[in-house]
Amino acid sequence: MSASIFKQSNVITCRAMVAWGAGQELVMEEVEVSPPHPLEIRIKVVCTSLCRSDITAWESQAIFPRIFGHEAAGIVESVGEGVTEFVEGDHVLTVFTGECGTCRHCQSDKSNMCQVLGLERRGLMHSDQKTRFSIKGKPVFHYCAVSSFSEYTVVHSGCAVKVSSFVPLDKICLLSCGVAAGLGAAWNVADISPGSTVVIFGLGTVGLSVAQGAKLRGASRIIGIDTNPEKCEKAKAFGVTEFLNPNDCNEPIQQVIKRITDGGTDYSFECIGDTGMITTALQSCCDGWGLTITLGVPKVKPEVAAHYGLFLTGRTLRGSLFGGWKPKTDLPSLVDKYINKEIQIDDFITHNLPFEDINKAFSLMREGKCLRCVIHMPR
Amino acid sequence: MSASIFKQSNVITCRAMVAWGAGQELVMEEVEVSPPHPLEIRIKVVCTSLCRSDITAWESQAIFPRIFGHEAAGIVESVGEGVTEFVEGDHVLTVFTGECGTCRHCQSDKSNMCQVLGLERRGLMHSDQKTRFSIKGKPVFHYCAVSSFSEYTVVHSGCAVKVSSFVPLDKICLLSCGVAAGLGAAWNVADISPGSTVVIFGLGTVGLSVAQGAKLRGASRIIGIDTNPEKCEKAKAFGVTEFLNPNDCNEPIQQVIKRITDGGTDYSFECIGDTGMITTALQSCCDGWGLTITLGVPKVKPEVAAHYGLFLTGRTLRGSLFGGWKPKTDLPSLVDKYINKEIQIDDFITHNLPFEDINKAFSLMREGKCLRCVIHMPR
Ligand SMILES: NC(=O)c1ccc[n+]([C@@H]2O[C@H](COP(=O)([O-])OP(=O)(O)OC[C@H]3O[C@@H](n4cnc5c(N)ncnc54)[C@H](O)[C@@H]3O)[C@@H](O)[C@H]2O)c1
Ligand SMILES: NC(=O)c1ccc[n+]([C@@H]2O[C@H](COP(=O)([O-])OP(=O)(O)OC[C@H]3O[C@@H](n4cnc5c(N)ncnc54)[C@H](O)[C@@H]3O)[C@@H](O)[C@H]2O)c1
Ligand SMILES: [Zn+2]
Ligand SMILES: [Zn+2]
Ligand SMILES: [Zn+2]
Ligand SMILES: [Zn+2]
Repeated sequence: MSASIFKQSNVITCRAMVAWGAGQELVMEEVEVSPPHPLEIRIKVVCTSLCRSDITAWESQAIFPRIFGHEAAGIVESVGEGVTEFVEGDHVLTVFTGECGTCRHCQSDKSNMCQVLGLERRGLMHSDQKTRFSIKGKPVFHYCAVSSFSEYTVVHSGCAVKVSSFVPLDKICLLSCGVAAGLGAAWNVADISPGSTVVIFGLGTVGLSVAQGAKLRGASRIIGIDTNPEKCEKAKAFGVTEFLNPNDCNEPIQQVIKRITDGGTDYSFECIGDTGMITTALQSCCDGWGLTITLGVPKVKPEVAAHYGLFLTGRTLRGSLFGGWKPKTDLPSLVDKYINKEIQIDDFITHNLPFEDINKAFSLMREGKCLRCVIHMPR
Repeated sequence: MSASIFKQSNVITCRAMVAWGAGQELVMEEVEVSPPHPLEIRIKVVCTSLCRSDITAWESQAIFPRIFGHEAAGIVESVGEGVTEFVEGDHVLTVFTGECGTCRHCQSDKSNMCQVLGLERRGLMHSDQKTRFSIKGKPVFHYCAVSSFSEYTVVHSGCAVKVSSFVPLDKICLLSCGVAAGLGAAWNVADISPGSTVVIFGLGTVGLSVAQGAKLRGASRIIGIDTNPEKCEKAKAFGVTEFLNPNDCNEPIQQVIKRITDGGTDYSFECIGDTGMITTALQSCCDGWGLTITLGVPKVKPEVAAHYGLFLTGRTLRGSLFGGWKPKTDLPSLVDKYINKEIQIDDFITHNLPFEDINKAFSLMREGKCLRCVIHMPR
């Protein structure tokens, strides 16, 4: 611990968009944000984009009142005891799955499932199972231990990644979740090889990031599947070579894919959040070496069901959380790739909205009208 | 084609154990075995061992009358037109999934799913969708295009592997299916690394061959699970370090495994033929890199069901058919390993029975009293 940097900070009262019930419009509230506890940092959120996972949790989970938001960038306002990695003023990305650096998984090069700061599901902070937000003294729950739909938030120092202050936070906030998740699924988890064939189910930011990753790996065919016809044009810009809308097909989509690829693709990706489509994705990849990567977070029916024969004939099903990236170790290289124009992020941002209009972002995403809406917090 | 070797042979009338209905005792019948068609060979079966897959198909499939048996070794009696690889008198192993050598999968080093001679499910020969057996002119169906419960059988030349005439056929017939399937699952499909932890569900010949493979790879812990307490002792001889009987546990077996391995094993194998146990196997391996290999062929409930979260937290589910071996390319090296005493086979053979007693072998396996029963055909 670096005692010179740590000074006890005070409770901040600021504005946050609070969810009071499943599917209910967020309400701007005054919230108290506690000082960071040991090893935590308090962040002034600069930008936060809306990811489908926020919506799914808001629609289906029973943890309220709650502050959503996990795809975000901000500036360190104060640091808790023992924090040596960050100082006030540092620019950071938040991450929904952290990296403690010392557990068995952080030490292994095969896993990004930190056992200390992994995905938090109960709306609490990892260290003490409590909240850092309250409204008139009553606790308000977190989401993924990030909760960026607030002017200030507290995160564990293991759930933030320092970035250069020259990088535009309103762009790279997308690396905090969706874009990194898709690229990593293509590169780390599937490890797509040049010349291979790929099918992607769901062409939101996650699916199109997979497409971008597949294109950069030199995939020869990238088939994009979406029930929303408006996704077609944008998809091509990200590398999709063929767009198929299942609603326009006379036969099940997996049959179409198998037919046009002579037995199925080398890789298939589920980027919707529908376990039924995991089955479809498995049926769409080929015998022998077909690899299905599932990324989606379903709102209903959490069980994946598939005929054992799909596996026995050589298919593999693997999941991908945050694209297999270890956030602290790996995100800086993705930021560099963005700076060097090796990956594109800007085109995913279809809308920029002020904090007050966050409910509009929710509507746009639910209606399939956006890829990413970036929410800009007041200065 | 080598015209000098090919001479038209005649129909052979011989004895076969025929299944007339699901689960009904096999009946010794006189059958006519047609000459081999082009690219086929007719084999005098020397030994055939009983695999659980024979029993499962006999109990649950509706293809009768049928001649089962697929784990076998024999001597070529005659060859069909165009066969250059075999001559009369060659010693061979049969295989239930062939290798044509020229299809996309045979050409790839990632697959053993020959698209021409792959697993045959309708009881017919690959080339003409007909049978080579009849009883008084009425067709008798094949099993896996092998049907070794007959004194003579006809197989495609791509479904047989030549072996030296010095190798004991009554031992290496186990490499025709079960032993090769288990070793390959450990070596090729899971690619077990030294020092890792393994759990195996089902300690028949397949599961114990996985254990043998894991041991030879230097796994540090090999946990064997079986509801039959008699499997314990034999299991240790094949490398199982800890035996657990789920019926003796007060909590679900996956919880026991997670507890004693601090979060789950590196690898888990389903070698029972119960899709519910695939789920259990997934739950028993660890976050991050846990790999579940499924080998079993279920009699009921062909659907695998698993919570999507098991995948999202880093697990992989993969199937293994014939251990990923390409039969013609790879089986000779396994035979060599047996000759060089690098792998053991003999200890799997708990019973040797004459052809007439094949129903006894069925009973022994159904009652859990054997590993492999080798059936010896009359000379
Ligand atoms: N694994 C991870 O690390 C990770 C990270 C971020 C998001 N996610 C999840 O990935 C999924 C995608 O996220 P997103 O932000 O891109 O969402 P999104 O809503 O922007 O995109 C989903 C796309 O799927 C399409 N779709 C919906 N139903 C469909 C169907 N039946 N057939 C074909 N297309 C269909 C929609 O039209 C939309 O284009 C979500 O489930 C999200 O929770 C996972
Ligand atoms: N994938 C392949 O290439 C391949 C090849 C051969 C066999 N198989 C299949 O592998 C499986 C095993 O074959 P085998 O010949 O070793 O069979 P087996 O019958 O000799 O062994 C199965 C074992 O599972 C145990 N078992 C049954 N139910 C159990 C339960 N609920 N919990 C724990 N243990 C249980 C039995 O006691 C037995 O020891 C079968 O399904 C078979 O069809 C697959
Ligand atoms: Zn960790
Ligand atoms: Zn997200
Ligand atoms: Zn082939
Ligand atoms: Zn078998």
